[in-house]
Amino acid sequence: MNDMTSHEAVTACVLVIGNEVLSGRTQDANINYLARELTKLGIRVAECRVIPDIEAEIVDAVNHCRAKYTYVFTTGGIGSTHDDITAQSVAKAFGLGFGTHPEAERRLLAHYGDNANAARMRMAMTPEGADLIDNPVSVAPGFRVENVFVMAGVPVIARAMFDGVKGELKGGKVLVVKTVSTIGISEGMIGEQLRAVQAAHADVDIGSYPFLKFGGFGTNLVVRGEDAAKVNAACTDLKAMIVAAGGEPIDGETEGEELK
Amino acid sequence: MNDMTSHEAVTACVLVIGNEVLSGRTQDANINYLARELTKLGIRVAECRVIPDIEAEIVDAVNHCRAKYTYVFTTGGIGSTHDDITAQSVAKAFGLGFGTHPEAERRLLAHYGDNANAARMRMAMTPEGADLIDNPVSVAPGFRVENVFVMAGVPVIARAMFDGVKGELKGGKVLVVKTVSTIGISEGMIGEQLRAVQAAHADVDIGSYPFLKFGGFGTNLVVRGEDAAKVNAACTDLKAMIVAAGGEPIDGETEGEELK
Repeated sequence: MNDMTSHEAVTACVLVIGNEVLSGRTQDANINYLARELTKLGIRVAECRVIPDIEAEIVDAVNHCRAKYTYVFTTGGIGSTHDDITAQSVAKAFGLGFGTHPEAERRLLAHYGDNANAARMRMAMTPEGADLIDNPVSVAPGFRVENVFVMAGVPVIARAMFDGVKGELKGGKVLVVKTVSTIGISEGMIGEQLRAVQAAHADVDIGSYPFLKFGGFGTNLVVRGEDAAKVNAACTDLKAMIVAAGGEPIDGETEGEELK
Repeated sequence: MNDMTSHEAVTACVLVIGNEVLSGRTQDANINYLARELTKLGIRVAECRVIPDIEAEIVDAVNHCRAKYTYVFTTGGIGSTHDDITAQSVAKAFGLGFGTHPEAERRLLAHYGDNANAARMRMAMTPEGADLIDNPVSVAPGFRVENVFVMAGVPVIARAMFDGVKGELKGGKVLVVKTVSTIGISEGMIGEQLRAVQAAHADVDIGSYPFLKFGGFGTNLVVRGEDAAKVNAACTDLKAMIVAAGGEPIDGETEGEELK
């Protein structure tokens, strides 16, 4: 709730491009992976969107998000078939030409040899002047234009591409994250006290996440902040709050069922 | 790619509200569930967004999406703690007052009895005039304001709430969906032919999804359209295309590994 890092936050948006996610055919796996990896780098994922394979929608989302956030990561729509229109749409978003990237062409020809064909060679097309993103899984590269990173939708490929580019990213302040948990105390029992602890520790952000265990409720209280001493001070107060409510505080996350 | 249903499409947007999804702590499960259920009702999920627990962001997203789509479904941020700010943000988006809903108050008092407290009773607060959405799991209701349905983030509760409201939705034309698949033919081998089949069948939408099986690539070709005869005609041409490429067409989806 508190936007603690806004003074110099490094932010990111993940754009998942694909009708198959919107129809429910495919469960997206890239948002969660990128969110965890970017968070580790101190980059705050401020928004994610899932959008269809429609050029105007891709252009609008890319232009909105590249202006608003430090980085944009797209996944999906860079394969060899007619429904893969991400690359041409990103070119349009930037007002750039769209054509064959010589190094991408070289890589694809080396890989496919006699099996190169028009469909596969379309994967060598990028916005003019784009920097390639290596694809150690299946060769066909992603690319970067300014602050927009265009990656494959297939999770194993998206992860390999991200691994290859993360060294280029300007990391932010990595937040200190600590969790205090308790079993048998639901968040509804401590909601008001928790509000008071949050108010007394305005430089940290406290999230409350219920879970089920042994047939009853429990609560994970996650504290995030830039300053370890402030995070620890909030944790101390949260533990005292749990004791006052008749519960037993646990250092760290408690895994429960269903409610995550 | 083709926006086949745009002449009278019933559309929806799913807004997942929660810092825990953006930090990667939680893997969202609501987008996929709602996408599948809405698709079954002939409602096209045109966009999904994951946004933080920040009032201004919620207000902006709700107002943008409720104007653009037939329905908006939000999940998350309606619990009893300080970080649950969805209800008040939706009130602000609509310019409505925010206060205790008498029927929600009655339900929560009946449920909690002597354990009712200020934190729990906050869950009775809705935008003025909102219609409640039943919560058969844990009582605290969601609510509807015009075309915006505000539901819990916990997947079992979100699903129960959606089940309760889906009868209120104006369904669209349910698309006919058929899949033709093949093992041993990658999409790169048939990309150009596939483009020609799509061009010849402009009233259907053909998606191409690669998979791995027996150590090699395969392809699922998913055909969607309003008219069963047109979907079948496209499938016939896709099968002929696969045979011409030296493959064997399979009626229906083939499950593979990793690339979904």
